[in-house]
Amino acid sequence: MQRYKITIEYDGTDYCGWQRQDALSIQECVEKAIYAFSGEEVLVTACGRTDAGVHAYGQVAHFDLEKPHPTHTVVGAINYHLRPHKIVITKAELVDQEFHARFSAQKRYYRYLIVNRQSPPALDAKRCWFVRAKLDLEKMRMAAQYLIGTHDFTSFRAAQCQAASPVKTLDFIEISNFENTIIFDFAARSFLHHMVRNIVGTLKMVGEGRISPDEVAQMIEAKDRSSAGMTAPAHGLYFMRVEYGT
Amino acid sequence: MQRYKITIEYDGTDYCGWQRQDALSIQECVEKAIYAFSGEEVLVTACGRTDAGVHAYGQVAHFDLEKPHPTHTVVGAINYHLRPHKIVITKAELVDQEFHARFSAQKRYYRYLIVNRQSPPALDAKRCWFVRAKLDLEKMRMAAQYLIGTHDFTSFRAAQCQAASPVKTLDFIEISNFENTIIFDFAARSFLHHMVRNIVGTLKMVGEGRISPDEVAQMIEAKDRSSAGMTAPAHGLYFMRVEYGT
Repeated sequence: MQRYKITIEYDGTDYCGWQRQDALSIQECVEKAIYAFSGEEVLVTACGRTDAGVHAYGQVAHFDLEKPHPTHTVVGAINYHLRPHKIVITKAELVDQEFHARFSAQKRYYRYLIVNRQSPPALDAKRCWFVRAKLDLEKMRMAAQYLIGTHDFTSFRAAQCQAASPVKTLDFIEISNFENTIIFDFAARSFLHHMVRNIVGTLKMVGEGRISPDEVAQMIEAKDRSSAGMTAPAHGLYFMRVEYGT
Repeated sequence: MQRYKITIEYDGTDYCGWQRQDALSIQECVEKAIYAFSGEEVLVTACGRTDAGVHAYGQVAHFDLEKPHPTHTVVGAINYHLRPHKIVITKAELVDQEFHARFSAQKRYYRYLIVNRQSPPALDAKRCWFVRAKLDLEKMRMAAQYLIGTHDFTSFRAAQCQAASPVKTLDFIEISNFENTIIFDFAARSFLHHMVRNIVGTLKMVGEGRISPDEVAQMIEAKDRSSAGMTAPAHGLYFMRVEYGT
């Protein structure tokens, strides 16, 4: 039995998310592609179960095969069978049975993109959140400072979140911009369900001047989802990469 | 009669190119959107008649309306009617009758993207040229030096090119990279038909080591299309912006 770690890139637009559900999931596409080349039915376990519409440049997952194959064969063969899909394996590595894509992860990196201008994007419509109101980057950066560090993130947690504890440690939120695109970079060991999107939705309201940066501190304190801002749409979110212990 | 200058962004994937033809063109979509809001049948003249599949962040065009409208109305109304399409007006300006989107242009900027890695791109499949063989950037930069400046570009000109002269002045070719993406930036007052794509196709062969940088000098000298490299695919090309005299 050999365990494989794979890195996956996908355009989340056409899928119901990572996890197998009634509609077409990324997990199902990858599992079927592995079956098609190996004849083995496998369970593919991902680092992060991204929601419908969320994209990935560096999702990581693992699975086991009874019959061993070289990693370059694994990449080529899975990609061959994934051709009809906007899903690609960018890397495959041999790992020990102790490796677990989800539980071994030390740090996860997410990115969120807002296009902030008068006209909707033509080229990146399903790849960003289009916000017409001019956003104040400095105010959003001030508000982000309150969120960095270890907090009870109940106010930024989806009702359906299954995490044991609402306490998480946000290593950083970096807010940069390139022309009209505002880039939010997040890193943490783990995130609550919808945490990045709820934070971005709140920061966007700060950027519009609808709430002050200081009010974000009160939102954290409130430990109540209804105290914070809206959930930013899924299609602006990217799962960028994962770090594992060596 | 008022002349309008508009800046246009589009995803070229689903269109037969800028120019009106039997299939759906960007020109037709824009002209129909202008008619829908103004009731006036107009001819929209573009700076560059991009081919099928070519994208634009900053195409520029002009048209005339009998009845004047404020520029923000022009942007909003055209975009409203363009909603079904991946075409967006990002700016409208009032200009004199002397302004001509094509003939007044002083400098045009094109960008070409190659994704250079083992696995095909999932997120940017129709937005770049996927090249698996590792390309040598330094060699491509050396070859590009021969192309910069004023030359007879017959070897890099499409058979169907209608330009009066094959002599053009390339202001620069900048080759940079970001992770696995190689970015080719071009600037010139004007380009021959397929000139950017034929240059990129040739530079790619240099990057692969199939031809030497010095051979590019011989290709220019040959003044024969068959002496140079292949035409790079349309979907990696972007019309970035245009400069006009003040």
